[in-house]
Amino acid sequence: MKIEYKLIKNDNKARLGKIKTNYGEYDTPMFMPVGTRATVKSLSPDELYEVGSGIVLANTYHLWLRPGEDTIKKAGGLHKFMNYKRPILTDSGGFQVFSLAKNKEKDITEEGVHFKSHLDGSNLLLTPEKSIEIQNKLDSDIAMSFDECPPYPVSYEYMKKSVDRTLRWAKRGKDVHNNPNQALFGIVQGGEFRDLREYSCKKTVEMDFDGYSIGGTSVGESKEVMYKMIDDGIRYLPVDKVRYLMGVGDPIDILEAVERGVDIFDCVLPTRIARHGQAFTRSGKINLNNARFKEDFTPVEEGCDCYACRNFTKGYIRHLITTKETLGGRLLSIHNIRFLIRLTEEIREAIREDRFLEYKNEFIEKYKN
Amino acid sequence: MKIEYKLIKNDNKARLGKIKTNYGEYDTPMFMPVGTRATVKSLSPDELYEVGSGIVLANTYHLWLRPGEDTIKKAGGLHKFMNYKRPILTDSGGFQVFSLAKNKEKDITEEGVHFKSHLDGSNLLLTPEKSIEIQNKLDSDIAMSFDECPPYPVSYEYMKKSVDRTLRWAKRGKDVHNNPNQALFGIVQGGEFRDLREYSCKKTVEMDFDGYSIGGTSVGESKEVMYKMIDDGIRYLPVDKVRYLMGVGDPIDILEAVERGVDIFDCVLPTRIARHGQAFTRSGKINLNNARFKEDFTPVEEGCDCYACRNFTKGYIRHLITTKETLGGRLLSIHNIRFLIRLTEEIREAIREDRFLEYKNEFIEKYKN
Repeated sequence: MKIEYKLIKNDNKARLGKIKTNYGEYDTPMFMPVGTRATVKSLSPDELYEVGSGIVLANTYHLWLRPGEDTIKKAGGLHKFMNYKRPILTDSGGFQVFSLAKNKEKDITEEGVHFKSHLDGSNLLLTPEKSIEIQNKLDSDIAMSFDECPPYPVSYEYMKKSVDRTLRWAKRGKDVHNNPNQALFGIVQGGEFRDLREYSCKKTVEMDFDGYSIGGTSVGESKEVMYKMIDDGIRYLPVDKVRYLMGVGDPIDILEAVERGVDIFDCVLPTRIARHGQAFTRSGKINLNNARFKEDFTPVEEGCDCYACRNFTKGYIRHLITTKETLGGRLLSIHNIRFLIRLTEEIREAIREDRFLEYKNEFIEKYKN
Repeated sequence: MKIEYKLIKNDNKARLGKIKTNYGEYDTPMFMPVGTRATVKSLSPDELYEVGSGIVLANTYHLWLRPGEDTIKKAGGLHKFMNYKRPILTDSGGFQVFSLAKNKEKDITEEGVHFKSHLDGSNLLLTPEKSIEIQNKLDSDIAMSFDECPPYPVSYEYMKKSVDRTLRWAKRGKDVHNNPNQALFGIVQGGEFRDLREYSCKKTVEMDFDGYSIGGTSVGESKEVMYKMIDDGIRYLPVDKVRYLMGVGDPIDILEAVERGVDIFDCVLPTRIARHGQAFTRSGKINLNNARFKEDFTPVEEGCDCYACRNFTKGYIRHLITTKETLGGRLLSIHNIRFLIRLTEEIREAIREDRFLEYKNEFIEKYKN
């Protein structure tokens, strides 16, 4: 089967749902840790199960380059390759192509994107068909359509052309998609232009994808513009399909997006800041490089149920971070991912009890960044 | 209490023993993983328990510099600081002082060693008293005497002077040692000179330490010279005390040393080679960077019971190593430490059944490096 989404209940626009896949089911809203190269940096699959991760994301671009989709297919697909027994979503590779390649080094044509490999500078071409072909071989549970991700800001004229091209690319990808066990999501673009978001959304939904993503956020726009993009993009999406906001992992942004009807999120933020010594807490992010934590022998966050907080102190983790011992980033990654997944657990509980807005306001009041 | 050693039985000179500490007991021969900065690189304490690690080593020099022995004392000692619930041995700091500082940057005097910090170049002085004071505060289960570790080769005259100084340093350290829960080991030196080994050994044993280490090996000498150093050093050690060979982790060397009566070993080898993609197997070391493993979807070693071999393939671990993902080094560290600890488990079983030499010869026949 592909995936099945069931909307359990609404609390205003916030949604409590359930997604069934061939690798088990999970509840939404849900945060997805990012496993760029078929590994969520420094963590084992068991550690991901333990933090309550329902689904992880892997990057098509990186896996295409190394070890290559054919190698992963020979291993029996991405689940077997990385020994991850829960659902996996793969992105289209588009975001990496647009962000890793410098402007001079990429050429966007109707066919696809010509660019240079960030590894060896070799010339590469990623097309909608190629992206889907790679993802079919990776055999993830959810594949994403290949879209153009324009910088911010661009002119209305550019964005109009880009939206049309993304629609044509979505159709081409859908036409070649042929993995019966893999869902395929469409991506809504349109930048901050409300009518283009409406246009992109309606045309994408007409193609009837298994779920929809709101693209083009977190590219440098203000929070207000981002929330407006979500509002503008989401209103024309069907209620019986999953809504995915790409690249968002800030706790406040997750709350704002859930309020607007988003179901799933992904972001490298919790693992990236962990490697630099930063940890989420209910009162905001803390930086363990700070000398005041040197002899602080309390957990990163009192009351947190993660492995790091149950077993280690700020002082010890600070020592690991400042001496560049990898256990430090690993423990903070566990904590930060658990923090976001626990946030979504509490969000689900609040929606179930029709008190999401109350929960959101209480959380934001304590959380200072 | 300090530690208690019980010799269970001999198989020729090979010894099966048991060590009791305040943090539990373990059997010997035993390999100790090295936790340089209060962390066995990339591994959690739980992973160390799972590979069957009886005791780990931590480096006094590194912990003196960062975070400092007073910080660890405030945390409640090293066990609490790193949350390790089994025994810990600390070295004296001497080896690091002698190996990290360049020749021009250290000055060995009767008082101790003046040298420059490898971190910031500041002037430091490590003395026998200071080493013991730091180790007392770290509150490890076993502390080591501060010795001079001369390079190889040196003249007989230099070695004679060095052995005498090491004896005076051992006495000074023993005089200031005042942690009733911590054992203190003496170190036998003397290089490749048989009479100096005998002299060092007899004089050190006269001081009545809780255990003895054979020092000055693995400094560039040939295998034959190293085995002779062990023979020369061990013959005058009491049978009712633990014998520790420092810095040895090659499987063949462990077997040769056990045959000569050594009980415990430590080495950074299993974790260091792991980070570079190398794994121990019964037929010798393999290097997963080798392209022939790219699509090898079998475990690092068939029949190995470690977490890495039960869950992941050579192809996946190779992918992690070549893309510099830290999970790769972590999985190979687990495998390599488990390999050495399993080797000591099998050695103990063989001694118990009076077939150690047979076991050793069978192992060496298969193991090619």
